[in-house]
Amino acid sequence: MSKINLLNIVFILMLICSCKQSGEKMQATDSTKQNKSAAPKELIFSKGDKITNNNFVGDAWVEMLVLADSVNRNSVGSVTFAPGARTNWHSHPNGQIILSLSGKGYYQEKGSEKKILRKGDVVKCPANTAHWHGASADKEFIQLAISSRVDGPTEWFEAVTDDEYAN
Amino acid sequence: MSKINLLNIVFILMLICSCKQSGEKMQATDSTKQNKSAAPKELIFSKGDKITNNNFVGDAWVEMLVLADSVNRNSVGSVTFAPGARTNWHSHPNGQIILSLSGKGYYQEKGSEKKILRKGDVVKCPANTAHWHGASADKEFIQLAISSRVDGPTEWFEAVTDDEYAN
Repeated sequence: MSKINLLNIVFILMLICSCKQSGEKMQATDSTKQNKSAAPKELIFSKGDKITNNNFVGDAWVEMLVLADSVNRNSVGSVTFAPGARTNWHSHPNGQIILSLSGKGYYQEKGSEKKILRKGDVVKCPANTAHWHGASADKEFIQLAISSRVDGPTEWFEAVTDDEYAN
Repeated sequence: MSKINLLNIVFILMLICSCKQSGEKMQATDSTKQNKSAAPKELIFSKGDKITNNNFVGDAWVEMLVLADSVNRNSVGSVTFAPGARTNWHSHPNGQIILSLSGKGYYQEKGSEKKILRKGDVVKCPANTAHWHGASADKEFIQLAISSRVDGPTEWFEAVTDDEYAN
């Protein structure tokens, strides 16, 4: 093998090596970016604690952001429902305000059609009206619940049946 | 030049070419991802209408999400402050709740230090306490304002001076 041929082969090997390294480096940068952009969706409030009382069906979490007091009788909670999770039927003496932050949820008042809630949707539940809310069957749902306690606390009723949930 | 040498040179050129193209392709993918992650920030609520009353300094917008009524006496508004914009000093007979959604804002009660507000920060303004809130000098600020009107409407006072704003 001539000297020139040998040099060529060395050069080819160096090129292959450099090309592979460069590719790997770019892939690594790319994957870091991918991880970042696919990274935890932008939660505004903490998920909080898992709800363990019997007023909910399925997995739900609440982060209490504001507690009511004797002057400002509002509480504000950020509630996260796993797919399929929902509250039992319940009502509020002063109504409640639901602000949908992300995902896909349901809201239904007794005797009315179930409504779909998406990011940015707002519900003003009327006072003393039985209703339930929760996640859709396939997507998590995150909402703020603003509850006024001027005329008393939430009243809880029976669970939402699978039939009620599905229809 | 021998046939083998010529083949080597062609092979080197092909390698250089393929290496360059592969790099460019990766850079392109990378740049697309970058554009995507830098994409328009995800607003939850509409920006609403420009505030034209004299209770604000600078450019601010409000989208009223919920209006108070005789039973649920809370109003909820999404307020967007351009950099440098702020409310005048004011107070609420039942206090107010501020939920920071995005950007960087300020909150100050009369006689206390100015606080910096960022996404997820919550303020429960005490009743009948003069305070102001708004955007930082360099960044827009978006917040929800939950105002209880049980004991009356907001009382408005003088503008926040540039000195007060800066300190």
